[in-house]
Amino acid sequence: MAGLSRRRLLGLTGAGAALAGTGAAGGLAAKRWLLTEPGDQPQELTTTVPFEGAHQAGIVTPAQDHLHFVAFDVTTSDRGDLVELLREWTRAARRMTRGLETEGGGAVGGSPYAPPADTGEALGLPASALTLTIGFGPSLFDERFGLRERKPAALADLPPFPRDDLDPARCGGDLCVQACANDPQVAVHAVRNLARIGFGKVAVRWSQLGFGRTSSTSRAQQTPRNLFGFKDGTNNLKAEDTQALDEHVWVRPGDGPDWLVGGTYLVARRIRMHIETWDRTSLGEQEQLIGRAKGSGAPLGQAAEFDQVDLHVKGTDGEPMIPHNAHIRLASPDSLGGVRILRRGYNFTDGSDGLGHLDAGLFFICFNRDSREQFVPMQRALATGDPMMEYLEHTGSAIFACPPGVSHGGYWGEQLFG
Amino acid sequence: MAGLSRRRLLGLTGAGAALAGTGAAGGLAAKRWLLTEPGDQPQELTTTVPFEGAHQAGIVTPAQDHLHFVAFDVTTSDRGDLVELLREWTRAARRMTRGLETEGGGAVGGSPYAPPADTGEALGLPASALTLTIGFGPSLFDERFGLRERKPAALADLPPFPRDDLDPARCGGDLCVQACANDPQVAVHAVRNLARIGFGKVAVRWSQLGFGRTSSTSRAQQTPRNLFGFKDGTNNLKAEDTQALDEHVWVRPGDGPDWLVGGTYLVARRIRMHIETWDRTSLGEQEQLIGRAKGSGAPLGQAAEFDQVDLHVKGTDGEPMIPHNAHIRLASPDSLGGVRILRRGYNFTDGSDGLGHLDAGLFFICFNRDSREQFVPMQRALATGDPMMEYLEHTGSAIFACPPGVSHGGYWGEQLFG
Repeated sequence: MAGLSRRRLLGLTGAGAALAGTGAAGGLAAKRWLLTEPGDQPQELTTTVPFEGAHQAGIVTPAQDHLHFVAFDVTTSDRGDLVELLREWTRAARRMTRGLETEGGGAVGGSPYAPPADTGEALGLPASALTLTIGFGPSLFDERFGLRERKPAALADLPPFPRDDLDPARCGGDLCVQACANDPQVAVHAVRNLARIGFGKVAVRWSQLGFGRTSSTSRAQQTPRNLFGFKDGTNNLKAEDTQALDEHVWVRPGDGPDWLVGGTYLVARRIRMHIETWDRTSLGEQEQLIGRAKGSGAPLGQAAEFDQVDLHVKGTDGEPMIPHNAHIRLASPDSLGGVRILRRGYNFTDGSDGLGHLDAGLFFICFNRDSREQFVPMQRALATGDPMMEYLEHTGSAIFACPPGVSHGGYWGEQLFG
Repeated sequence: MAGLSRRRLLGLTGAGAALAGTGAAGGLAAKRWLLTEPGDQPQELTTTVPFEGAHQAGIVTPAQDHLHFVAFDVTTSDRGDLVELLREWTRAARRMTRGLETEGGGAVGGSPYAPPADTGEALGLPASALTLTIGFGPSLFDERFGLRERKPAALADLPPFPRDDLDPARCGGDLCVQACANDPQVAVHAVRNLARIGFGKVAVRWSQLGFGRTSSTSRAQQTPRNLFGFKDGTNNLKAEDTQALDEHVWVRPGDGPDWLVGGTYLVARRIRMHIETWDRTSLGEQEQLIGRAKGSGAPLGQAAEFDQVDLHVKGTDGEPMIPHNAHIRLASPDSLGGVRILRRGYNFTDGSDGLGHLDAGLFFICFNRDSREQFVPMQRALATGDPMMEYLEHTGSAIFACPPGVSHGGYWGEQLFG
């Protein structure tokens, strides 16, 4: 009984059949049911995402609810120190993604005369679907670590875009870690402990907390809403689109250096949204700017969210239902020569701007196989042609190369440093 | 069946008995069970907290997981405008705390030629136990609104404390709203829509996002951990302590002006925690500073978290187990002439400090009956005697008077303005 009450019963045919016998629940046995006791941890918290694999977790993993993203400067110039740190980080990441403390001993099991081996604020919290995803920035490939020859041509600093308003303190970084989890305390704990482990070798350059994922990355997920109130990510690449992911996300042999095959490029953009101005725009204008109905998420001219976008359908006035400069037209593969990206962003709210408004927006994250041919032309089209830009301000920017997944017993970056 | 699958079945004796019949679950009928289908909303999201009552919700309400706190400057100087705004806010708060949009019509049901009556990012999200709690700052009682005679003597600006490092942009405010919910998108939506409704009458002065509540306010809740990794709030006042709440939290007749009877004072302090320094402190030193074991949360000298704190028990060396300057000794009612407060704070992480560290800490919120006799002497004792202050930096500060609860059909502040 105690054992039963401490875990969820998933798809128990026996229990299902018995429940069906109550008469209240015909057809029940055909479904998957959860049986829980108040106080049990819900499934989204108890889920563990495997750390090892062909690709890093946290990319096509169904997007979790919370983000803590951190960019580090490497402060050591010793290549051996850096590699040792990557090994230590990997050990800690393996454990934390299983819901464990960073090291044996942990927060309270070590010597009272030594600093604890874990900071402790996630003690007792489950894995919460934590994923940790590492990326290497262009600056890591300078003269310090002998990596110059191994720098992919596609790992180029992003070009300036029209109307960029970038804060250098929110840009760049030698390394990044994207921590995603269904409990923000778990994501923050992970980043904080990586920073702790890296003391003396890395320093936090910038970090960003996010909530309310703004993209689905699996067909099993509902499409969430961004802070403009619109469903966002309906036509995103999804985990189930394995062929499209191979084409648009994962780096292939011949794309560049071999160490990155099976990896991808992460682009992060902190996009302040001028929500107060947006909120004073009419519903019709908002929908024309986006190209979708605000309620259903349906493309204009269609009935339902997942109806195929048809850029050619015209209204009674002979004009396209989806305007020439609507956001979804400009960002569509049809307008960009087939370009697609995997988006995985989060909403943010960082206090106020000092001018009477909230400082809120979208922390945009995308993954693509070559940003020069995917994110960059897409963002250039949006920055120059999208009237929605009037409501947006890009305040942070970074690009990182995310190596492929970690092998059994391997470490983050083993392909690059090995 | 469809109806059954869309809601949770709480305490269904029939289903419980049937389940017991499976043989795997003896004694089941004696417990309350939840029966859910994957994709159902969990209970913490579907909960609705009543908006009306003798006291405002969000004070002794079991602390939700997320916070968005906002302080406003009133920009109109017209008393009628302000009262009308408070009425509009109350209407919206009544609806949002039930999981509805701010107004009928809402985000998508209005005219396409008008701005929507709700911003839409919480469309489809349940109430998530949202509470909205209003407070009036000392500055509201200046000459603008004819309130000078109604200002409680206890609504005095907080005195400076030793080692304060306050940022004026994170201090004060004419009004505050504390939004707490189990989904941050719901809390942010509520604050953002109150700001939207108040356009032209109020401006956001500062706002703070919080996650991971750092206090329990009900005996039904587990004690959470703060970013020092310690259980925080074990001996907090709890909702069940009705007599102690009457003594320490709720303003009584004769305490000051009648309009605040049944209300309370809210003190907010943004406390940056130098977690990197803390993390390099030994476990033993951390426990001596706090006065509790890090793992169990037990007071030093005791065995379990909820064991009575005994400030007199001595170790083999003849010294008190709980050091003379331990945090829990200095903050204990025994050391402060019986003073107690209701704490209801949250962890925060706001990017980085530009010096290689996370900008993280505790957004402290407490409620008390007279801050001059409760919070102020407590904070003075801590600021002068608590060695933990070496790891802390108070960067924001505010005090507000929270009026009593809203009556049926009434509005926020009816007792003050009525």
